[in-house]
Amino acid sequence: MKTVLLVHAHPDPHSLTAQLATAARAELRAQGHEVIQSDLYALGWKAVYDEHDFPDRLDRERLSFVAESGHAFGTGAQPDDVRAEQAKLLAADAVVFQFPLWWFGMPAIMKGWIERLFAFGLAYGWRGAGNRYRYGEGGLAGKRALLSVTAGGPAADYGPRAINGPLDDLLFPITHGTLFFAGMEVLPTYAVYGTGHIDAGGVDAAKAGLAARMRTLFDDAPVPYRPQNGGDYPDRHVLADDVAPGVAGLRAHLR
Amino acid sequence: MKTVLLVHAHPDPHSLTAQLATAARAELRAQGHEVIQSDLYALGWKAVYDEHDFPDRLDRERLSFVAESGHAFGTGAQPDDVRAEQAKLLAADAVVFQFPLWWFGMPAIMKGWIERLFAFGLAYGWRGAGNRYRYGEGGLAGKRALLSVTAGGPAADYGPRAINGPLDDLLFPITHGTLFFAGMEVLPTYAVYGTGHIDAGGVDAAKAGLAARMRTLFDDAPVPYRPQNGGDYPDRHVLADDVAPGVAGLRAHLR
Repeated sequence: MKTVLLVHAHPDPHSLTAQLATAARAELRAQGHEVIQSDLYALGWKAVYDEHDFPDRLDRERLSFVAESGHAFGTGAQPDDVRAEQAKLLAADAVVFQFPLWWFGMPAIMKGWIERLFAFGLAYGWRGAGNRYRYGEGGLAGKRALLSVTAGGPAADYGPRAINGPLDDLLFPITHGTLFFAGMEVLPTYAVYGTGHIDAGGVDAAKAGLAARMRTLFDDAPVPYRPQNGGDYPDRHVLADDVAPGVAGLRAHLR
Repeated sequence: MKTVLLVHAHPDPHSLTAQLATAARAELRAQGHEVIQSDLYALGWKAVYDEHDFPDRLDRERLSFVAESGHAFGTGAQPDDVRAEQAKLLAADAVVFQFPLWWFGMPAIMKGWIERLFAFGLAYGWRGAGNRYRYGEGGLAGKRALLSVTAGGPAADYGPRAINGPLDDLLFPITHGTLFFAGMEVLPTYAVYGTGHIDAGGVDAAKAGLAARMRTLFDDAPVPYRPQNGGDYPDRHVLADDVAPGVAGLRAHLR
């Protein structure tokens, strides 16, 4: 039995997002897993990361998010909502993010969940060692992560040469830059397209597809991003010349 | 004389973000332009896009953001804060976004400004014609946009083969997927790196660099993204075979 945190973001309890979250939860429970949920709109989640996140300031004059984040996380002087959500995150063996793609990213309310929870000393600056541990190592290592997204537009807009760009590239700041950065094993994104005109059969297929992914959540191979400290980045910044020679851009970071 | 909207997002009035916004404003005014500002933290901007954005609902049972957005924008039944910020956006000849890069994207408060202002009928679904007008055409056509970002890490982490990925690729969902999508001419991003350890000379250089960009804001060539209706996407979805043949991914959408 594993513990899975399901984070979702849509205010309508009848939305496709809510239906997919319900389907995921049911399947995970059927598999014997414990499911904990963060329904961000229902929680009234505070999206804005600000001075109220640091009740015991290191410096009351100037606000450095990095410094205050490290201090707040390190001393436990964090707001109750952050502490409660971090406890769920830390208890989870896997985190599933269910959200509608808004302007090719997460809704602001979910981005704010990341910003407020992914503290210095946990998701970055692990062990107080700057960037020594990141991309494959860090405070969230050993946990799996899956993005499950719904897109209003058709799949044809997200192909390798399609006008929006490939979905994996658009989500790279989240999958690679946030989740893998913090040490998580990121699974291939689950996407449902064309939700602007989806019918009942489409909803059923979307739920069934997500349920299938829930059955293999702990078996599927993660996206093979290159770990920082695996040898491909000798100086921790740039790929060695003999790694993916001649390849530039996001795809170079896939083994 | 042009009108420039400066949108910025950091709660500390002494932050580098605030200092850069001040430097940009001073230079734009020295050039004879009118500057309007949206200091999102000072405004107490509501980041979360939710049912309160639609005071006159089409459907009180189910919440479709697309349908309600089109109705609210089309009828003018929008919250006062959205109406006021949209008026600034519509009055602007150029919009400068000044923000710290948080998890390789905009702070949630600024993402929420986009979500709440970029309505159906304005930034997408222009003229009620679905995706007929997007990427180079749309309700924000004729306006320029510039991202001005500060990154804590070194420039070495953002090179063509560097571990974070190139900054232009990481920001593509914003520059191409949001601003160019809505019709804006997007200028090359202005970036300041290494702000985690910046000194007074670095701050001065950062301000001077941004001021220089403000002097050429209406002269610089935009990023040459391919317009949807310029012939490169015959079906409006996928690049024609003879356009950038063999190239896939985000870079294929640059002329």
